[in-house]
Amino acid sequence: MRGAVIHAPGDVRVEDLDDPSILKPTDAVIRTAVTCVCGSDLWPWRGLDAVERAGPIGHEYVGFVEEVGAEVTGLRPGQFVVGSFATSDNTCANCRAGWQSHCLDREFMSSCQAEYVRIPNAQGTLVATDGVPGEEFWPGLLAVSDVMGTGWYAADAAEVRPGSTAVVVGDGAVGLCAVIAAKERGAERIIAMSRHASRQRLAREFGATDVVTERGEAGVARIKELTGGIGADSVLECVGTAESMQQALRSTRPGGNVGFVGVPHGVAVDGQELFFSHVGLRGGPAPVRRYLPDLIDRVLTGRIDPGRVFDLSLPLERAADGYRAMDERRAVKALLRP
Amino acid sequence: MRGAVIHAPGDVRVEDLDDPSILKPTDAVIRTAVTCVCGSDLWPWRGLDAVERAGPIGHEYVGFVEEVGAEVTGLRPGQFVVGSFATSDNTCANCRAGWQSHCLDREFMSSCQAEYVRIPNAQGTLVATDGVPGEEFWPGLLAVSDVMGTGWYAADAAEVRPGSTAVVVGDGAVGLCAVIAAKERGAERIIAMSRHASRQRLAREFGATDVVTERGEAGVARIKELTGGIGADSVLECVGTAESMQQALRSTRPGGNVGFVGVPHGVAVDGQELFFSHVGLRGGPAPVRRYLPDLIDRVLTGRIDPGRVFDLSLPLERAADGYRAMDERRAVKALLRP
Repeated sequence: MRGAVIHAPGDVRVEDLDDPSILKPTDAVIRTAVTCVCGSDLWPWRGLDAVERAGPIGHEYVGFVEEVGAEVTGLRPGQFVVGSFATSDNTCANCRAGWQSHCLDREFMSSCQAEYVRIPNAQGTLVATDGVPGEEFWPGLLAVSDVMGTGWYAADAAEVRPGSTAVVVGDGAVGLCAVIAAKERGAERIIAMSRHASRQRLAREFGATDVVTERGEAGVARIKELTGGIGADSVLECVGTAESMQQALRSTRPGGNVGFVGVPHGVAVDGQELFFSHVGLRGGPAPVRRYLPDLIDRVLTGRIDPGRVFDLSLPLERAADGYRAMDERRAVKALLRP
Repeated sequence: MRGAVIHAPGDVRVEDLDDPSILKPTDAVIRTAVTCVCGSDLWPWRGLDAVERAGPIGHEYVGFVEEVGAEVTGLRPGQFVVGSFATSDNTCANCRAGWQSHCLDREFMSSCQAEYVRIPNAQGTLVATDGVPGEEFWPGLLAVSDVMGTGWYAADAAEVRPGSTAVVVGDGAVGLCAVIAAKERGAERIIAMSRHASRQRLAREFGATDVVTERGEAGVARIKELTGGIGADSVLECVGTAESMQQALRSTRPGGNVGFVGVPHGVAVDGQELFFSHVGLRGGPAPVRRYLPDLIDRVLTGRIDPGRVFDLSLPLERAADGYRAMDERRAVKALLRP
């Protein structure tokens, strides 16, 4: 089969690879319908995460069940399935508590920009749709498997409630999906922090009521100005830098909440500042599996359309062009068609 | 009047001071019934917080209204009142949201180890009891004004729920009150971390089901052992050091919560560790005012008896002996009688 391999920063090639096969009786193999490039794939592309050796890459997928292991009783070949970047058995103590991205058997996916993918813990990880959805829904379902699930978790961790004010820090695909999540969870005022006209437009179409272009202390001041001097109820941090985290914490009202989903790079939170802020803080890799049935339903009923974050669609063979376009911020998110 | 003054680390003297008076129409002056020494008073006593110049000290009090300013319409002389270390107007946006310890008009109390005390924002800060409670209730009500209110907030911030497992880090007065709070909020298993026989005993009498004497990584390992390898639902951090915070974070299950109420000294939380832990974190000076009516009721109906944390009772004149006994861990908490 054909699949993407990262060799070094800036060097992703689509190559001939061995077809994946069932290694454990809990595995499945799927034929990829569509896959994509994630903002977090840009960390190694940019050399900010080390690339120790050449290896496959990608962790987002929807597809068709091709083959299942002996213990996978709930799935059958031909079904259309949506998964998550973190596999989960959905039976351990952490899964039962709703933290499937902390499953005791968790494996992070890392070979999904390919024609076929082996899915560990398939029974707990994959959710089959009712019949095969039309191709027009594939981008939305693909978003659900990662960026939309992550945006939803940001809103959940930040405890977005009906009638509240939410701020979204970051205008990448996750940030834009976080706007959708805040809207769906009933936030009345949604402030998107963005400097890019096309992303601002999409944020507004997704439900943002205000756009703030300032950053850092000026951004914090602007949020305070918009919230009666107090700060926002919920701030959804979708970047992962020290600057974005500080901006998020300082934009939140006393007693409010920050949900942080950008993988932190160089972030340390000062204990005394956090203490006197009264802000609640929760982050992590999103427990997407918890949200899948609900989010799949919202996409298939047309209630949300997170697939619109894909503003570039390429054949899998041109994966590197997708990385490049995202790195240069010419594209929000690149869809890859095997 | 007589009142305690801190001159330097280790040097607290009870001296003749001017009687306080009404400075603003929102003030009241109370005659102190009982006051006490707080664990946080030991920071300057030990020289860990700077003592820039000699000044009055103490922030815990219950007493009798002596005089009220023109705008204080809800209180009258002779009433017995309970307050908080943080004054609050109880009408601003933060107060209305339940964060009275972040009141826009907040003043932190700092002259309460004295015969009389001026209380700013009196109307919003003081809660009068129904009649004058018997002296046997004064220690309990005094505890409510700070350490019990703070222990309650730790349990609230750590989201202690019925049937859950709670760990309390710290066996000072706040930690012991946090055990009471966890019990009252329905925790089924309460693990107190303590090495002192008398405090262990009191913790068990307050509701602790287990005592862990190990600290640091060994303490974390022991908590994991007691919680099926997963960690506790809620951890109540009542110390404020880097070690105690790390111990708290690592003892919590994925998706669990840490409430931290020890004023952090030298604490920095690593963003990536917090991210991958999935732990929620909230701290701060407790919004005691929010809890006062409920906690006063629990004390006066005999449901809780947090006054038992006072294992030393001294005349105000001997305040320094109270500091010394607490510093040397001969006493959990010293009550002072004017």
